[in-house]
Amino acid sequence: MSERYVYSLKDGDSSNRLLLGGKGANLCKMAQSGLPVPAGFVITTEVCRKYMQDPKIMDAIWDDVKKYVAILEKETGKGFNDGKNPLLVSVRSGAPISMPGMMETILNLGLNDETVKGLAESSGNKRFAFDSYRRFIQMFSSVVDEVDFDLFEKALARARAESGITDAKEDYKIPAESLEKLLVEYKAIYKNATGNDFPSDPWVQLRRAIEAVFKSWNIPRAVTYRKINKIDDNLGTAVNVIAMIFGNLGDDCGTGVCFTRNPSTGENKLYGEFLMNAQGEDVVAGIRTPMPIAELEKKMPDNYKRLCELTKLLENTYQDMQDIEFTIERGKLFLLQTRAGKRTASAAVKVAVDMVNEGLIDIKTAVTRVSPDQVEMLLHRQVDKSAKQDVITKGLPASPGAGAGMLVFSADEAEEWARAGKPTILARPETSPDDIHGLFASQGVVTSRGGMTSHAAVVARGMGKPAVCGCEEAAIDVDKETLVVGDRVFKKGDWVTVDGTTGQLLAGEAKMVDATFTDDFKKILDWADENATQMVWANADTPEDAKRAREFGAKGIGLCRTEHMFMGVDRLPVMQKLVVALGGDSAKEARADALAKLKVMQKEDFLGIFKAMEGLPVIIRLLDPPLHEFLPKEPNILEALKTASPEEAKVLNQTLEKVHQLHENNPMLGFRGCRLGMIYPEIYEMQMNAIFEAVAELTKAGISVKPEVMIPLVGTKPEMKFFREMADRIAAEVKKSTGVEFSYLVGTMIEVPRAALVADQLAEYAQFFSCGTNDLTQTTLGYSRDDAENKFLFQYIDKGVFKENPFAELDRDGPGQLVKMAVEKGRSVNPKLSVGICGEHGGNPASIAFCHSVNLNYVSCSPFRVPVARIAAAHAALGVLK
Amino acid sequence: MSERYVYSLKDGDSSNRLLLGGKGANLCKMAQSGLPVPAGFVITTEVCRKYMQDPKIMDAIWDDVKKYVAILEKETGKGFNDGKNPLLVSVRSGAPISMPGMMETILNLGLNDETVKGLAESSGNKRFAFDSYRRFIQMFSSVVDEVDFDLFEKALARARAESGITDAKEDYKIPAESLEKLLVEYKAIYKNATGNDFPSDPWVQLRRAIEAVFKSWNIPRAVTYRKINKIDDNLGTAVNVIAMIFGNLGDDCGTGVCFTRNPSTGENKLYGEFLMNAQGEDVVAGIRTPMPIAELEKKMPDNYKRLCELTKLLENTYQDMQDIEFTIERGKLFLLQTRAGKRTASAAVKVAVDMVNEGLIDIKTAVTRVSPDQVEMLLHRQVDKSAKQDVITKGLPASPGAGAGMLVFSADEAEEWARAGKPTILARPETSPDDIHGLFASQGVVTSRGGMTSHAAVVARGMGKPAVCGCEEAAIDVDKETLVVGDRVFKKGDWVTVDGTTGQLLAGEAKMVDATFTDDFKKILDWADENATQMVWANADTPEDAKRAREFGAKGIGLCRTEHMFMGVDRLPVMQKLVVALGGDSAKEARADALAKLKVMQKEDFLGIFKAMEGLPVIIRLLDPPLHEFLPKEPNILEALKTASPEEAKVLNQTLEKVHQLHENNPMLGFRGCRLGMIYPEIYEMQMNAIFEAVAELTKAGISVKPEVMIPLVGTKPEMKFFREMADRIAAEVKKSTGVEFSYLVGTMIEVPRAALVADQLAEYAQFFSCGTNDLTQTTLGYSRDDAENKFLFQYIDKGVFKENPFAELDRDGPGQLVKMAVEKGRSVNPKLSVGICGEHGGNPASIAFCHSVNLNYVSCSPFRVPVARIAAAHAALGVLK
Repeated sequence: MSERYVYSLKDGDSSNRLLLGGKGANLCKMAQSGLPVPAGFVITTEVCRKYMQDPKIMDAIWDDVKKYVAILEKETGKGFNDGKNPLLVSVRSGAPISMPGMMETILNLGLNDETVKGLAESSGNKRFAFDSYRRFIQMFSSVVDEVDFDLFEKALARARAESGITDAKEDYKIPAESLEKLLVEYKAIYKNATGNDFPSDPWVQLRRAIEAVFKSWNIPRAVTYRKINKIDDNLGTAVNVIAMIFGNLGDDCGTGVCFTRNPSTGENKLYGEFLMNAQGEDVVAGIRTPMPIAELEKKMPDNYKRLCELTKLLENTYQDMQDIEFTIERGKLFLLQTRAGKRTASAAVKVAVDMVNEGLIDIKTAVTRVSPDQVEMLLHRQVDKSAKQDVITKGLPASPGAGAGMLVFSADEAEEWARAGKPTILARPETSPDDIHGLFASQGVVTSRGGMTSHAAVVARGMGKPAVCGCEEAAIDVDKETLVVGDRVFKKGDWVTVDGTTGQLLAGEAKMVDATFTDDFKKILDWADENATQMVWANADTPEDAKRAREFGAKGIGLCRTEHMFMGVDRLPVMQKLVVALGGDSAKEARADALAKLKVMQKEDFLGIFKAMEGLPVIIRLLDPPLHEFLPKEPNILEALKTASPEEAKVLNQTLEKVHQLHENNPMLGFRGCRLGMIYPEIYEMQMNAIFEAVAELTKAGISVKPEVMIPLVGTKPEMKFFREMADRIAAEVKKSTGVEFSYLVGTMIEVPRAALVADQLAEYAQFFSCGTNDLTQTTLGYSRDDAENKFLFQYIDKGVFKENPFAELDRDGPGQLVKMAVEKGRSVNPKLSVGICGEHGGNPASIAFCHSVNLNYVSCSPFRVPVARIAAAHAALGVLK
Repeated sequence: MSERYVYSLKDGDSSNRLLLGGKGANLCKMAQSGLPVPAGFVITTEVCRKYMQDPKIMDAIWDDVKKYVAILEKETGKGFNDGKNPLLVSVRSGAPISMPGMMETILNLGLNDETVKGLAESSGNKRFAFDSYRRFIQMFSSVVDEVDFDLFEKALARARAESGITDAKEDYKIPAESLEKLLVEYKAIYKNATGNDFPSDPWVQLRRAIEAVFKSWNIPRAVTYRKINKIDDNLGTAVNVIAMIFGNLGDDCGTGVCFTRNPSTGENKLYGEFLMNAQGEDVVAGIRTPMPIAELEKKMPDNYKRLCELTKLLENTYQDMQDIEFTIERGKLFLLQTRAGKRTASAAVKVAVDMVNEGLIDIKTAVTRVSPDQVEMLLHRQVDKSAKQDVITKGLPASPGAGAGMLVFSADEAEEWARAGKPTILARPETSPDDIHGLFASQGVVTSRGGMTSHAAVVARGMGKPAVCGCEEAAIDVDKETLVVGDRVFKKGDWVTVDGTTGQLLAGEAKMVDATFTDDFKKILDWADENATQMVWANADTPEDAKRAREFGAKGIGLCRTEHMFMGVDRLPVMQKLVVALGGDSAKEARADALAKLKVMQKEDFLGIFKAMEGLPVIIRLLDPPLHEFLPKEPNILEALKTASPEEAKVLNQTLEKVHQLHENNPMLGFRGCRLGMIYPEIYEMQMNAIFEAVAELTKAGISVKPEVMIPLVGTKPEMKFFREMADRIAAEVKKSTGVEFSYLVGTMIEVPRAALVADQLAEYAQFFSCGTNDLTQTTLGYSRDDAENKFLFQYIDKGVFKENPFAELDRDGPGQLVKMAVEKGRSVNPKLSVGICGEHGGNPASIAFCHSVNLNYVSCSPFRVPVARIAAAHAALGVLK
């Protein structure tokens, strides 16, 4: 525990973001480097953590706060609660990890009926002083005392109307006298709502504002944001108390936000927006439409030049693209904040590759700059430009990519519909931080107000959700739940498509095409492979999937399921004949006939996949699902029986009998996997023959094949021994009959807990393990995935029983422990045992990090997720993903 | 590896049963103690083990065999292959653990056309010599060369008929001349069957006989016997080569079998049977009906006295009841074998207690003398003497207890029907060792021939199967599959009851009553408790069951299921109302109403059980099964809808909707256990209130109550925390409202693998664990019990994938490892954590031994199995059950 709770920007340790927060640490760095930042001080995150336990910590730090306010008075030459030349401050949150807009801020603190006069005098601008006071009351009341913000907005609207002004953009025209009257009304609203007078003592204001910022660490939107972004709930926020700089003192003033590179494209050029004669909140709120940063060059060339120099300096200092807030007060430029800028996925890729080329960062760093989530976004499909499009309206291309869904008008509804499996597009006039869960749940967002740095735009880019912002033509009415453009009316539930790449909103579900890989993207992925220790393989059942997987960078097939091969229209009838003929002696001939036909088909399948994966390993899993999955359902058979000929009826009745025979109460735990192969060895023998004959044929043709035969659902050593011996026997027979030599491996899935518990025994016969974590999760937790999710699992996640859905992210304490055990026990017998994972977790970054930590050789995922897994594997190896 | 393969009875180490086999070791002991045993030598079990690998070992031992034959010649004064005074030997198996009748024996070896003349001369009895030769050819041919035994029997029958003899019992009247002719025929049968002459060289005979005995270690009936009795397949058998003693030389000869105490009742009195002028096989085969041993006193008073002395000496030496074979040759008594006698369960109890009283053994030894299987037999039900009985016929009460089933006439059929779940009674004229699997599978056995020491009687007693033997009135025809007594004909499939206690065969399924506990039995069980380290608790859901469990010696209730309490006719409708009203706000009132009613009922239930178990712990498990189990099935609802009033239809439709809502694909892995309690906390709150209110009420009334609340299906720490806090809160409320102080525990079941994996986390909140090994077996193996057994599990057991059904005997490598892990991890956090088991394995002796090895505090089983578990727990603690 440190003993010091407050640091001046001049003496805070800028490397200690955990203690000072990101904003505080960066302000310290800038201040101590002589950059133009306002004076101020930081109250540490430690105070926040203590405050959560016991608010009395405020007493303990109060002397320190007073001391640093006194220093601030000295530095600014102004006085706190000074009726002549009052010191005003901003009180702002600042967490160790940036959570833009999620917590509270209070500006213009220090104003009361006395100091407002002093501010009017010292600024020579009565209107400015009253407006600042008005803003302060409104912000303080809603943030600190939860007075309804709209009550103030309505009063403001009345004042606006009385002054003959129709547009909020022209609020700066409301005369001082009206504002003075409005202040009386504002204070009455406060008193009416809280029962108390508005606090006039700046010290009381300051203390309550600090507490409000601490408390805002736990407001719902902040908690949601942390949950989505996996930020530790125990970090807490620092509080920055900074002398106010005013961008709204007149036409020699302004305020803005800029990025050192373009956050949408990554282009290496200053990017941003500013407003003349405004406070920072005006830029973000989206009420007035800001000007592009390049315009500043015309308005204030010196300041523009200075801004360019300073921002480049900051980028070089932090070796990353920066997001910077600035304010110009009476011609003097101040930097209010710098932080790593949020960027689109394609910008992340371009910036990373450019910075390597510029010599600013090394390759390892570049790889860590592109997150698995961003790679996923780059794989998002785009609207097919060649198809016909029904454009409803156009706005700003605020976040690229395309998403289609049904219109909803509230964040809660977006979440509900998502739970029910319905894709949505969230439409709002503008979004606020309270809408974050709805943005997360929807396929895209459209707003009628706000620019490229508006809330919706920033958050959507961060999440990789397509967004079209500022569609000014569109009237979005959240009460009527309509989006109207001209005479076109779209209602809740109507399908629309958001094309965030072009900024278009389209009617209906637009045709989409796959994403394309830029050279920069390919380069990042290749760099990722160079830095990973785990390989990425893919799950693919067809030659087409195998080819795609290979194009996406898969280094092998970790799971080729053979059951899908029996589902084709020409094959299913043969498979059904086999299933009906299984068991007993009477149907021996029918069985042999069906098996012979299936073998020919299977061999063709394997030839295709082996060819597509020439030179790379292919793991083929033998038949896994319960046999009843191949038979028609009982009602269908009964229906067919009604019109069947006597001959047909005979077959149908046999089938029906088999359906009854194969019925199970818990098919998940039933007669499937290698249990089929033990009871009906002829099926696995047929599959092995087909595999090895295909291998021999290709080997003879000079094609390199690396077959691995995988036995599903093994739980005991006798099973593994039986199938290893079966494979060795059949391989020897095929070698003999074809005269071709080839090599192969035989292994098993680890998908029931017992397999992990006896992995040492299995490793005596298995040459590789593939952890089937879908089933392993079901059996280890005792959750049937189909049944659990809607019946209790989603509620379990809400209640915090699980932080993540264990079917999406591997549950490390449960199946994770068993995977670890399987690796350790298996390698204790066979140190070279190859172990991989082929459940859906194989494409999940956190799970990939876990796989890295237990030394798996590879992860196998769907072809589409291969690039995500490649970057995740690299991040795991580089230690940035744990 | 020892270097010596053969030992004389005079120098073998009688303590080394593993090397010399039980028979050999005991013969050595007797010989070396100066008791009258024939001369002989033993070939070790090691030779057998080597022989299984490579029969060439016979070459290596042959010189030794020759050497010991030479010694034998010296000792007996006879010569092997000596035409004048030939040495004949018996070649008999002898395993380390007694397997009576399971392996092969060859008598009279050494005879050929020359030596038979010498035997005739030296014995002065031509008829005897020819008869011995006949027996030898028959036995050797069938055992060594697998010549059909019946071919010889038919030839014998012809000879009998030609001699005018009608009954096999009078075979001794067949004249020498006929036998001489028969010998020619016998040799022709051999040649015809094998293509070779019958071997005349005694050395060839000896070598082939020894090999045949070794091979008989692996004949099917021996393998089956070892499987049933869990004897290690790798032990092998010794071979005893012993000089023949003849009980069939004339009226001063005889042979018999006796037990030092009565093997049926345990009475301390010599018990047995003998035949004058006969060979041992005649007693066992049951062709001639032997005389009770007491008759020997009249026939040969001196030998009878000597026999009494010698047998008592042997019992004292071995400190256990002995089963002794003897032969009297020309007035001289020889002991041919002694071994611990197989006995009925009640005899085992009486002998053990008597021997403690006699000072022969100590209490610990007495406890080990009664096996868990025997305790189980003592709990078998008996025919109700007070009910009317339809007696078909009467035989010997060969093995006590009663069993009812459908008549079958072959061992294979008995096994098949048992697999299909059909109880059977096996009826045979007489049984042979090849019928052992049928005896094991049936509920009892009835034979028309054979005495109290016949094969059927001995084996049935060993297995605790009721048997009625020697029902001479009954004609059992295995070809026609009928059992006929007078004009009553019983066919295959007809129900009969075997009353082995009285020796009656009854028609139909007789009414049965529970077993009664003798004082000796109670004493043994009390001694068992004194020597056990694990307690035995019981699973009981009602006050009646709890009382019975307590009477049977349970020291607590390890599992009181609450769901059965909702199944009563007055309760189910209330429970159904609750289930339909769960979830949503609209049915709040209906829910509260149903819960209030259920609470009153539950409290009554708990009052009853707590009272019955006063002073002992009672673990109450909260609601566990999926809710749909309480609702009617869909077809029933649809049926009811057809005739429902509009009011009824409304309720039925609501119910139907709920049935659909609650439907699951894999209910075993679904919405049940504490998952219900998390989503609908009101159910568990109601149950906890009912428990604690009952506790308070009884505590106030001065009744000692030890309640333990058990949460089912917990898999995560947040679940355990939630319910521990819920219980503590409700207990505090009840204490406050009633003003009564009481204590209680809160714990969980370990029944999904994850619970074991995170047992350390659970132990932070759980005060006890109860391993629910039924479900744990299902999830760890991935086997749905309902689906697995008939679909593949029985076949898996046949194929040796599992040695035992893992649902009957805990699979140590699978769920066993998880139980061990739960204990270790749980106690690492809470060293005093109580851990028990409440699956069906809690009543299975081998599983109890495992539980002992991992330091469980208690096992809990059905009340009926409590005595079995008590003895098993003691055996585990005493190290005789592992």
